[in-house]
Amino acid sequence: MKLTVTKQELNESIQHVSKAISSRTTIPILSGIKMDVSHQGMTLTASDTDISIQSFIATEKDGKTIVEVHQPGSVVLPAKFFVEIIKKLPADEVEIEVSEQFHTLIRSGKSEINMNGLDPEEYPLLPKLEENQILSVPSDLLKSMIRQTIFSVSQNESTPILTGVQWQLSKGKLKLVSTDRHRLASREVEIEKHGDLEFKNVVISGKNLNELNKILPDQNVMIDMVVAESQVLFKLNHLLFYTRILDGVYPDTSKIIPSGFKTEMVIHTKSFMNAVDRAYLLSREEKTNIVKLMAQGNGVVEISSSLTELGKITEEVEAISYQGEPLKISFNSKYMLDALKVTDSEKIHIGFTGAMSPIVIQPEDHVQLLHLILPYRTTN
Amino acid sequence: MKLTVTKQELNESIQHVSKAISSRTTIPILSGIKMDVSHQGMTLTASDTDISIQSFIATEKDGKTIVEVHQPGSVVLPAKFFVEIIKKLPADEVEIEVSEQFHTLIRSGKSEINMNGLDPEEYPLLPKLEENQILSVPSDLLKSMIRQTIFSVSQNESTPILTGVQWQLSKGKLKLVSTDRHRLASREVEIEKHGDLEFKNVVISGKNLNELNKILPDQNVMIDMVVAESQVLFKLNHLLFYTRILDGVYPDTSKIIPSGFKTEMVIHTKSFMNAVDRAYLLSREEKTNIVKLMAQGNGVVEISSSLTELGKITEEVEAISYQGEPLKISFNSKYMLDALKVTDSEKIHIGFTGAMSPIVIQPEDHVQLLHLILPYRTTN
Repeated sequence: MKLTVTKQELNESIQHVSKAISSRTTIPILSGIKMDVSHQGMTLTASDTDISIQSFIATEKDGKTIVEVHQPGSVVLPAKFFVEIIKKLPADEVEIEVSEQFHTLIRSGKSEINMNGLDPEEYPLLPKLEENQILSVPSDLLKSMIRQTIFSVSQNESTPILTGVQWQLSKGKLKLVSTDRHRLASREVEIEKHGDLEFKNVVISGKNLNELNKILPDQNVMIDMVVAESQVLFKLNHLLFYTRILDGVYPDTSKIIPSGFKTEMVIHTKSFMNAVDRAYLLSREEKTNIVKLMAQGNGVVEISSSLTELGKITEEVEAISYQGEPLKISFNSKYMLDALKVTDSEKIHIGFTGAMSPIVIQPEDHVQLLHLILPYRTTN
Repeated sequence: MKLTVTKQELNESIQHVSKAISSRTTIPILSGIKMDVSHQGMTLTASDTDISIQSFIATEKDGKTIVEVHQPGSVVLPAKFFVEIIKKLPADEVEIEVSEQFHTLIRSGKSEINMNGLDPEEYPLLPKLEENQILSVPSDLLKSMIRQTIFSVSQNESTPILTGVQWQLSKGKLKLVSTDRHRLASREVEIEKHGDLEFKNVVISGKNLNELNKILPDQNVMIDMVVAESQVLFKLNHLLFYTRILDGVYPDTSKIIPSGFKTEMVIHTKSFMNAVDRAYLLSREEKTNIVKLMAQGNGVVEISSSLTELGKITEEVEAISYQGEPLKISFNSKYMLDALKVTDSEKIHIGFTGAMSPIVIQPEDHVQLLHLILPYRTTN
């Protein structure tokens, strides 16, 4: 194997695939990045068995030579050092040559690096997924759907299925749901291009979606999603992101969401969020994060928090509209802030069905995003 | 006590003094910030006994009212919550009122905070230092002197005196020296305004200097330095920074610095630093950081590092000038990088007196900055 490649493109690809490298792998070959070089270009692969990422660098881009292949071949190089050294090489071009026993020579300017490569035959093969059913979603939309749901996955490994986000596709609507039993986040969108595809128990771990979000671009480019039995593949130009589907059945959360409210209000997101944030500052000193919300029915909402040792904070926010019974409810202010932070809407609608029933937070202008928070049982 | 103060000025002062708050204090009153309000303005004080910081806010600034004092008085408020809540208050003005038993009411916009204040009489008094001997140093110069020496203080608490930087003033020259026995950093400047002041055993802990550097402005404003028996006071406008002087006698380091060299070279700082940095990336994989430097006398300097498991990296850098014997020496590349990073000079002079003697790094154009690194004993 012998090639010359531009440092910038090589570095970009390495940065992408390196997201799949785990520092705690028990399979030695997976601490490396696999390089496959053909006359079409070079493919980099990294995997921790849970996530696999593959990036392809074509020999030409916009009429410019990116990879000059002198001799095709494959090698696996130790990831950690490889990732860091490529970034810092002195010249714009990098020469890579593999000789017997996978000894690899990397040259750039006056830098010369000899690396002990590993046998690419030992590297596990990526799953072959049937690609006849494809779902296409714009990258920026996918990113924001993930951001709006990922924070409420469970951190508790004793119920592994809840550490993931549930993906459902039915009648052209893609819905993401996550819950840690104390709160729930749900985001739905209509998808134009979906074929006849339907699924409802595709659960992807929050950790993996976090890595996916790092490599999804913010632009409006289409991401193809291939859903197989135990794997989902996200395809973006020359980048493939494979993730395992979590085992188990995701609980039916549709019945938890209240349909009618005893009290409803519309309120400015920012002023409500800032008031909750200040009350949170006090509440977290005792790690309970408990904040109390009271409303008399005149549209003035009082948010307060108190700690015996430190003192008390009281905030007043004027609701834009208020309907229904007076209100007295306590909740985890951290959960409320998490939900408000991902609600990209100037005004929000909050619905209450009683001091012990879930609080429902939605943007005022649409219902495709929904956050649900269980209140705290407090004594007064 | 009752006053109104602009949020911005109050917040700035709080941010400054809060640098002295330790989360692990054993003296309860020191977990608070003391406020003293007189008709001249308000003074904030924080201390962890090692460092004390005091900030004064005058009633007027540039003809604008900053503090409106309705009733003078004092109180101590729990620092952590106070620091964070003031930053996030909704209005530009903050009203603070202390009633009996130091109950404190803070109001801003629709936010109302009741805090349990503490008795200011319990707060320790700051030392009174005699200010007849003052040294004046420009803030930006002081910052850079600290930055150039602080990194080589010892992290080993078993020799406390070496965890500090030694400050010496003799014949109008201020010199800072630090060493952890493996390397030494020294920076000297001529001071215009110093009176007859001389000292040589003023040792200030690196930790404290780090906090000082955070509040020193980057501009060329004068900092007055008052040196007393066990304390040093840095004065900047309305800000006072007190630090304890470390007990013990700093070792005499003047004899360690070689006076003549067997090999000398001048080299471009950046290309040398980048080459060492790449070799460091490999060397740190085994935590030794050992990098080898070889020169045959033709001006080409070879920097290399090798690990049995991973491979080898070889770099070549052309020296601008080279005099003396061929060279083969090993050193800790992290120490070399630390020294090079704070050398704000395009070219450096490196002097060697043998494979077992200290390496001396200085800017090519002046000798006021000096870094010394002890080489590694290696078998080949």
